[in-house]
Amino acid sequence: MADTGTYDRSSVIASDRVEGTAVYNPEGERLGSISRLLIGKRDGQVECAVLSFGGFLGIGHEHYPLPWRMLSYDLDKGGYVVALDKKQLEDAPRYELSREPQFDEAYTKALYQYYGVAPLF
Amino acid sequence: MADTGTYDRSSVIASDRVEGTAVYNPEGERLGSISRLLIGKRDGQVECAVLSFGGFLGIGHEHYPLPWRMLSYDLDKGGYVVALDKKQLEDAPRYELSREPQFDEAYTKALYQYYGVAPLF
Repeated sequence: MADTGTYDRSSVIASDRVEGTAVYNPEGERLGSISRLLIGKRDGQVECAVLSFGGFLGIGHEHYPLPWRMLSYDLDKGGYVVALDKKQLEDAPRYELSREPQFDEAYTKALYQYYGVAPLF
Repeated sequence: MADTGTYDRSSVIASDRVEGTAVYNPEGERLGSISRLLIGKRDGQVECAVLSFGGFLGIGHEHYPLPWRMLSYDLDKGGYVVALDKKQLEDAPRYELSREPQFDEAYTKALYQYYGVAPLF
């Protein structure tokens, strides 16, 4: 992530603090919040942060995995900022919790390709 | 992590599934459970999984950060197995939630050194 130098003095963050953190677009509109991180089992690399929004009490929520490095933390907003517009989200890979995809290499590869981000792995 | 090939077919795991998962020693004794992951903000690398045990309703809990690569998933046990004995935990770096340390580079370096594990970063 970029711009986290002043986030706080520590260089690491706890997973349970990332979960639930708000996500904004560069225009300051709230897109949703991070529901979970997807982590490579072998190498412990966070591949995606899942942006979730919509629905009520978890029903009808849409889940959009985003490459981790697309997120930067904004101290003033107290949340992550992602360079995403709603148009881009329309066609983006998403899933419903009841129909969670197989997060295999092909899935994450396609995801990184969609956002034009080089994979970390 | 080693031995996760048959864990399930996907190569990634969600952070909220790791949190709460039981941790055993090689003798099959339950040591505690994973309370959170500590993630490098910039590179998205899971540096530690925090093993927590003791206490009641979160009071008096002890938290032991462990290098991620010390964990391997055991399908039969439905939890992680870590090559740790109680003696080793006695002197291990730990913290109480009310006195969370600064997780800077020096902290994680000392942690990896304590367990004799080469850092991933």
